[in-house]
Amino acid sequence: MTGFSRLAERFRRLSVLGDVSGVLHWDAATMMPSGGAAQRGTELSVMARLSHDLLTGPEMGDLLDAAEQETDQLDELQRRDLYWMRWRYTHASALPGDHVEAASNANSACETLWRQARAESDFTLVRDALTVVTQFVREEAVIKAEVLGLGQYDALLDSYDPGRRSADIDVLFDDLASFLPPLLADIQERQAALPAAIRPTVATPVAAQRKLADRLLEIIGFDFTRGRLDESLHPFTGGAGDDIRITTRFSETEPADGLMAVVHECGHALYEQGLPGGLRHRPVGESLGMTIHESQSLLLEMQAGRSGEFMELLSPLFREAFGEDPAWSPENLGRLYLAVQPSFIRVEADEVTYPLHVILRYRLEKAMLSGDLAITDLPAAWNDLMQDLLGVRLDRDAVGCLQDIHWYDGAFGHFPTYTLGAMTAAQMYQAACRATPAIPEAIAGGDFKPLFGWLRPNVHEMARRYQPDDLIQRSTGTPLGTAAFKAHLRCRYLPDG
Amino acid sequence: MTGFSRLAERFRRLSVLGDVSGVLHWDAATMMPSGGAAQRGTELSVMARLSHDLLTGPEMGDLLDAAEQETDQLDELQRRDLYWMRWRYTHASALPGDHVEAASNANSACETLWRQARAESDFTLVRDALTVVTQFVREEAVIKAEVLGLGQYDALLDSYDPGRRSADIDVLFDDLASFLPPLLADIQERQAALPAAIRPTVATPVAAQRKLADRLLEIIGFDFTRGRLDESLHPFTGGAGDDIRITTRFSETEPADGLMAVVHECGHALYEQGLPGGLRHRPVGESLGMTIHESQSLLLEMQAGRSGEFMELLSPLFREAFGEDPAWSPENLGRLYLAVQPSFIRVEADEVTYPLHVILRYRLEKAMLSGDLAITDLPAAWNDLMQDLLGVRLDRDAVGCLQDIHWYDGAFGHFPTYTLGAMTAAQMYQAACRATPAIPEAIAGGDFKPLFGWLRPNVHEMARRYQPDDLIQRSTGTPLGTAAFKAHLRCRYLPDG
Repeated sequence: MTGFSRLAERFRRLSVLGDVSGVLHWDAATMMPSGGAAQRGTELSVMARLSHDLLTGPEMGDLLDAAEQETDQLDELQRRDLYWMRWRYTHASALPGDHVEAASNANSACETLWRQARAESDFTLVRDALTVVTQFVREEAVIKAEVLGLGQYDALLDSYDPGRRSADIDVLFDDLASFLPPLLADIQERQAALPAAIRPTVATPVAAQRKLADRLLEIIGFDFTRGRLDESLHPFTGGAGDDIRITTRFSETEPADGLMAVVHECGHALYEQGLPGGLRHRPVGESLGMTIHESQSLLLEMQAGRSGEFMELLSPLFREAFGEDPAWSPENLGRLYLAVQPSFIRVEADEVTYPLHVILRYRLEKAMLSGDLAITDLPAAWNDLMQDLLGVRLDRDAVGCLQDIHWYDGAFGHFPTYTLGAMTAAQMYQAACRATPAIPEAIAGGDFKPLFGWLRPNVHEMARRYQPDDLIQRSTGTPLGTAAFKAHLRCRYLPDG
Repeated sequence: MTGFSRLAERFRRLSVLGDVSGVLHWDAATMMPSGGAAQRGTELSVMARLSHDLLTGPEMGDLLDAAEQETDQLDELQRRDLYWMRWRYTHASALPGDHVEAASNANSACETLWRQARAESDFTLVRDALTVVTQFVREEAVIKAEVLGLGQYDALLDSYDPGRRSADIDVLFDDLASFLPPLLADIQERQAALPAAIRPTVATPVAAQRKLADRLLEIIGFDFTRGRLDESLHPFTGGAGDDIRITTRFSETEPADGLMAVVHECGHALYEQGLPGGLRHRPVGESLGMTIHESQSLLLEMQAGRSGEFMELLSPLFREAFGEDPAWSPENLGRLYLAVQPSFIRVEADEVTYPLHVILRYRLEKAMLSGDLAITDLPAAWNDLMQDLLGVRLDRDAVGCLQDIHWYDGAFGHFPTYTLGAMTAAQMYQAACRATPAIPEAIAGGDFKPLFGWLRPNVHEMARRYQPDDLIQRSTGTPLGTAAFKAHLRCRYLPDG
């Protein structure tokens, strides 16, 4: 075997180990009995340790050095493989193996306590565990910042969204933080003047919602021979390659929510199912970080999925699923799905207020990381910032700083990618409709081929050929900015303004 | 870390990796979409390869040698750990890593084809794949026989049932092969003279069967916070430690079968749930091979679970689950559950004919391994031996040589442990009832504590402190033999004879 082949084989195994851990995570969230939590934590930490050892083993640095001396023997895709191998190696080798295993254990322990703390709305149950998690994260940030020559927060961010820097985010987010509150006021004023949305009076049992979700997934193009849909506390997309697993949560009384979560996850899933099969288990064949991933879910959920055309598609499906009800007219579904209202919960937020939830988390996690915010002060800081940004006051932490799993699982630097993804989605949907004007009308008729006819070659099949910012520039013609997103919000919510 | 601590840490990781592969296997059989099969095969083979590399890595031989020179520094349990470390190392290090990964791939590919071949009852679909699997198995047997100083079949058998030798099995099985056919004739004659069992006329929907199974598992003592029950093509017990997963298959028209499969798997599950938690992830803390494992399932399913007392327990549960029916009287349930009839399918066979199914497989797999039987001739050889041993003639291979997964998954040497387990179960149940005569009566009242009060200290908590034969001798007072099993069959099926 040549040096590059040996690298490729190691990274193939790493990719497979990652897929295995994905199955373990999915199972823990959907199937695992409660008593299995500690054991699952051990399993995940051993898997993390093995992956880390495989990635940072003694020969790896030498193999990479040697391959980088002989790039003339590699084709273009192999050179991209090599780029991402080095990127991943640099991120991983910065950390000692003991740190990785100990941090994984701390995350598992904290996540378990978080489930209880959230259920009981008692932050003190998880405060100490979160303090431990944050210490590991801070240690990681300090070490990586040194190695990568980046700021501490950027060093974490880079592994979620390669090449992204918080100085750029600050500019984009400051723009949104000043744009959104007045827009929000105008939208609320306009919506208050419209006829109220009609609430459905027919029963919407979970079994019928589930069937409707299956049907909608099929229409959009989810391949059930290569994936499945289940229920979990927090919707997510897991699995990999030929086995993509979506989850959602259904509420007996809010059929719109569970279904739209499915549409969101379906965007993630179709990205994964659309990655080039010929590059499976190669670094260049993976999805391109969280911002691009989230752009695919939000493009489907928000850009396409909240459009008037999508409401035309949904209307007969709702009638078929639950029986006739005046609430199921396309116009009324639109009013239900486009209601804008500041609220406590990020994952239930509309697309206008959502970025404010993200900006809050972005500011708080930077402050926790720098030490400016003590963990014990997190609930109060959260509540104050909710008041400032969204004008709402919380009465319990379950709907405040306990609502999201991220920090409790050690994920710092992930939150901004939600809103960067929303901006990317707006820019991409605009570009797709410019290139293929038939997209919206096709969606109304249940035909998603024109949409994916643009997404597949421009995004999905590109996998990791480019950096996220390059991919956005190539596919949309402009660098990532706030313009398309702002225009989209104005056009959808203030059509006469 | 001392040398022994380093060994212990390596074997802890190996145990965890084994648990992870267990989750992948369970998921493949219960949850995985069909398109994920090839990918899952890759995952399992990479996991097998990593485990193999960890077990046979360059330092392992030296670490074992060094630890064996200093056993005076180890306590008794650590010495048993060391014994099993060496045993496992010897089995694994005999084989090159490439063989292990290639064999795992071949098994996965063959298993997938087997599912199709069985569905279509077409052996030719899987013949070539099985030939490849058998070649890998034969290669393994040749290499291991050399290293272990055993016969080729014994070298495979030893990894399923440590210390077991086919010369001993031959004696036991020849005894049964001459004992059972005349007994079978007598039983059939006696049962033909009795009033026929009444078939239920009430509906027995799968959902109600499922609820009954949950209830019965709870009564027996299965801990649902540390396990779950699902459905799969072939019932099995997977998972480990605090997360034991039982599967069964329910038939709308045969409620007795799915339920008894659950009782069988519950025996496996309670053995696993009863292993000493303090020895978790240590070689000495594992279950003791297939014969002992099967003895625990058959003790519950056949010894306890087909007793008159168990029928007294079941009778009101069936009434509660499905409504009143004359079929649910304890006497009639006994007639349903104790009907003896030669048939095609091993897993549906009664306990009288079951050993004949096993003896058939034992003889055929020895012949396939030695090369005396070509794979292409397997269906004919199977059918001839069915005629000889059980007096039945097959009309399709789906109910013949395609019925069991074992060979198609590379498992040769596993089959005899079913009947060795049945004999062990008879011997242990006899010993348990001798020590605690209240066991049967307690079972009639739904109290399994006396039974497990004997099994826990005598079997479950012993884990791997002794060899299987030693454990049988210590717990029952005699070496493994056919006497208790034969006496049990005579007493149950020819009570007046």
